[in-house]
Amino acid sequence: MSEQNPWKTLSSKYVYENPWIKVREDSVITPAGKEGIYGVVETKKAVGVIALTDDLEIYLVGQYRYPLDRYSWEIIEGGGESDEEPLETAKRELQEEAGLLATNWEPLGEEIHLSNCFSSERGYLFVARGLSSVPVSPDDTEVLQIKKLPLKEAISMTDTGEITDSLSIIGIYRLQKLLNL
Amino acid sequence: MSEQNPWKTLSSKYVYENPWIKVREDSVITPAGKEGIYGVVETKKAVGVIALTDDLEIYLVGQYRYPLDRYSWEIIEGGGESDEEPLETAKRELQEEAGLLATNWEPLGEEIHLSNCFSSERGYLFVARGLSSVPVSPDDTEVLQIKKLPLKEAISMTDTGEITDSLSIIGIYRLQKLLNL
Repeated sequence: MSEQNPWKTLSSKYVYENPWIKVREDSVITPAGKEGIYGVVETKKAVGVIALTDDLEIYLVGQYRYPLDRYSWEIIEGGGESDEEPLETAKRELQEEAGLLATNWEPLGEEIHLSNCFSSERGYLFVARGLSSVPVSPDDTEVLQIKKLPLKEAISMTDTGEITDSLSIIGIYRLQKLLNL
Repeated sequence: MSEQNPWKTLSSKYVYENPWIKVREDSVITPAGKEGIYGVVETKKAVGVIALTDDLEIYLVGQYRYPLDRYSWEIIEGGGESDEEPLETAKRELQEEAGLLATNWEPLGEEIHLSNCFSSERGYLFVARGLSSVPVSPDDTEVLQIKKLPLKEAISMTDTGEITDSLSIIGIYRLQKLLNL
């Protein structure tokens, strides 16, 4: 059996759109040969950055995640437009959220698909080293908390389920592997 | 600074719905005190199962992921309704997709949030052991491929980025940790 596309798209229309997501409904012929629909959520690129100090500490950002109605501690994350390279998004988010610049950037693995049943969202991860501080705009402090903690503690928070965000979990585990911890 | 909800919801309405997802748009007061909107995608629970043999082999399912327009090899996955326990979904999917029953079930960590910027999707992972075969309905073979391979090979596929699905990546890494591989 091949890995070819067994779906046929008959038509597409956008059924909802806001500045962050677009929802598309396609009329399709399913792999079983029946007429049906497929709803696809189109998103920005999801970019995650682990800012790692020379002492093996990392930065976590705390924020209330409205869709889940709960608080979440995560690596530095942000959304990138389709025409922005993930590394550029990563640099911007590191500066905006953590007030940091980095001299050394390394991808943490390849493209990740966060929820491929219904969304085309693609995730990208980086570790940033050689950190230095720049001023942060004070507005950001109204909604985000930021803390620095040992990477080993963050790994433990990931193992125990205290960190629940998928991109953060994958980034922290990949960094653990990269550093042979 | 607290971990309280800094958002206020003024009103909610559903703007799109199909049998798999519902899209809700809320009118909100943002943490910065401004009026705005928040679009939330409500989904079924995402449940992933790693079926592990006594020889440390696991099952991967191959399928074309329409939203990404690409083929994907993943652990066994399926969606559960809100009133279905994740373990029940896991048992059903293991039987439907792989034609397997298991005598031993263990969670692989806690609830995971797959894409918490815009969706309330919650993921659950299990490792299933003590496997035995049951007949599979032949319809399934039209859209899914299934293969058994050494867990070590699946870990390697996860490290190299050949496996791109977030729930599969987290499940395979957590199983690697559980077994001290």
